[in-house]
Amino acid sequence: MTHPASSPFDDIRRLITTMPGPDEAAIEAVRLRDRQLTKPTGSLGRLEWLAEWLAAWQGKSNPTVDRPLVCVFAGSHGVTAKGVSAYPSEVNRQMLENFAAGGAAINQICAAYGLGFKVFDLALDMPTGDITETEAMDEKACVATMAFGMEAIAGGTDLLAVGEMGIGNTTVAAAIYTALFGGPAEHWVGRGTGLDDEGLKRKVAAVEAAITRHRDHLNDPLEILRRLGGREVAAIVGAILAARLQRIPVVLDGYVATAAAAVLHAVHPSTIDHCVAGHLSAEGAHQDALARLGKIPLLALGMRLGEGSGAALAMGVVKAAAAVHRDMATFSQAGVSERLS
Amino acid sequence: MTHPASSPFDDIRRLITTMPGPDEAAIEAVRLRDRQLTKPTGSLGRLEWLAEWLAAWQGKSNPTVDRPLVCVFAGSHGVTAKGVSAYPSEVNRQMLENFAAGGAAINQICAAYGLGFKVFDLALDMPTGDITETEAMDEKACVATMAFGMEAIAGGTDLLAVGEMGIGNTTVAAAIYTALFGGPAEHWVGRGTGLDDEGLKRKVAAVEAAITRHRDHLNDPLEILRRLGGREVAAIVGAILAARLQRIPVVLDGYVATAAAAVLHAVHPSTIDHCVAGHLSAEGAHQDALARLGKIPLLALGMRLGEGSGAALAMGVVKAAAAVHRDMATFSQAGVSERLS
Repeated sequence: MTHPASSPFDDIRRLITTMPGPDEAAIEAVRLRDRQLTKPTGSLGRLEWLAEWLAAWQGKSNPTVDRPLVCVFAGSHGVTAKGVSAYPSEVNRQMLENFAAGGAAINQICAAYGLGFKVFDLALDMPTGDITETEAMDEKACVATMAFGMEAIAGGTDLLAVGEMGIGNTTVAAAIYTALFGGPAEHWVGRGTGLDDEGLKRKVAAVEAAITRHRDHLNDPLEILRRLGGREVAAIVGAILAARLQRIPVVLDGYVATAAAAVLHAVHPSTIDHCVAGHLSAEGAHQDALARLGKIPLLALGMRLGEGSGAALAMGVVKAAAAVHRDMATFSQAGVSERLS
Repeated sequence: MTHPASSPFDDIRRLITTMPGPDEAAIEAVRLRDRQLTKPTGSLGRLEWLAEWLAAWQGKSNPTVDRPLVCVFAGSHGVTAKGVSAYPSEVNRQMLENFAAGGAAINQICAAYGLGFKVFDLALDMPTGDITETEAMDEKACVATMAFGMEAIAGGTDLLAVGEMGIGNTTVAAAIYTALFGGPAEHWVGRGTGLDDEGLKRKVAAVEAAITRHRDHLNDPLEILRRLGGREVAAIVGAILAARLQRIPVVLDGYVATAAAAVLHAVHPSTIDHCVAGHLSAEGAHQDALARLGKIPLLALGMRLGEGSGAALAMGVVKAAAAVHRDMATFSQAGVSERLS
């Protein structure tokens, strides 16, 4: 498709062209140190890979996880009018209060691992358009939401986890996957917070209706984003981009956060090279989505809560990986014999 | 086979008959509370299961991970004379010093998650017999080592991880798996700390020789344990039993620790119901061993270090699961709406 001469999306596209690549010298430095640590090379598996990954995207040979931050983006969805969730939309506001009071699952995980935690209210009282009937957002609102998402890293962090909360947002994410990767809708749709069989049928029908409604505008990933929307998805797109520009590696949460990564991947696959999949969600076809993005999840615990909960658990592993790489003794420091021959 | 009228193993067999079962009332109490927490039921997957598992084996409806402890058992193996490891046996003593100095991988993981850490030196300067030629231990030494392993919990803990260190001990574990589950030896043998192809052939040959040498005595799991041995394996058997009797759930580390669990499982499958598999190791046929024990590992990160490192990482997840169950708000506390209909 063709774009208007000067679209707000053009700024995003220009931004993407300025993204830094991996720091190869930092990776090499991490590998060099790793080979000197008191363990057989390769014996820590993905922990070793995580140290390299942190170094690559932080752009430093001594990777850190000193200020890990979990950001949860909360959005409200017009498509809930179609009966696609087991919970009413007022839960959005109630859960925001629960986050603030420290009562949600994510609060406990952040406390357990010493992770910072921020919640972004994305106009919760103003639901996006019902995507079965209209566009979720106009272009300006979409770009403004991305810009708001970019604020995630404003307070400073060296490892960012992106998660979300929003009744109806697995419907929106399923629509995005269907648009990006092709149908049938029922392949991508899951039970979300726990839909019964009738609800699942309504959800599949809503995704099919949305795809039909927008079918002539689905060959541009950013158009897919604004039409099928979800402000939380747009904000996560912004957060992922801002993190890349500021050299902050990103841990993706589950099904909905991965949809934001999928939009960026469709713009250009390298845009999410600084992102690791925190976990494999039990929702819908998350496994297929991750496979299409070339991402191997760190954890697979059958979780499907959202709130950044899977990413936060994974951050515990990343934190340990950084500590292991930083603090282990070398063979010569410890006086341990190296391998024979 | 028949046993002598009064064998030291009889005490172990008697002990096993006194083991407590799961606390069904505690499980029910955890489920009841879980359904009231501000999340869709089931949405935390294995985290919910972990809270139930802790309650079942701690025997209390408010499961805790307040004093988690990682125990590493270090043994020395006569079979190393057959060239089955990429590292020399003097590494055993050197690594013990590395643990004490805080330089090993396990030290950093324990520090990251606030886990207690203890190392047990199992007569490192007195290797067990070369199992290709003789018995690893006599019956008295085997039972004494189990008893020493039981000391793991003496200082108090509410969650125990069992791991090991010992050049040559993946050979010993492979021999135990082959004896318990049947061959061929090459199915069970892996590269350990990083054997080359020639070393791998020697390792397979050593396991085959050990099985041939002891073939008339392999129908009793405790006989398998003492003949194919590994003091660390015997000590872990003791630690697992003592933990059960004291109502302490156990997180198994990888390939070698699982061999201890496999011995107990062969005595009676219920003896390891209080054990969770911390991770899937990249060593040998660990996946097959876990499948035969009916254990689904919490993590799969391609690790194969030992030292309790995989179990310790998994303990981070268990700790978070306990915190989530204990500290989350209920729907009524948080004023969050429950599901529709």
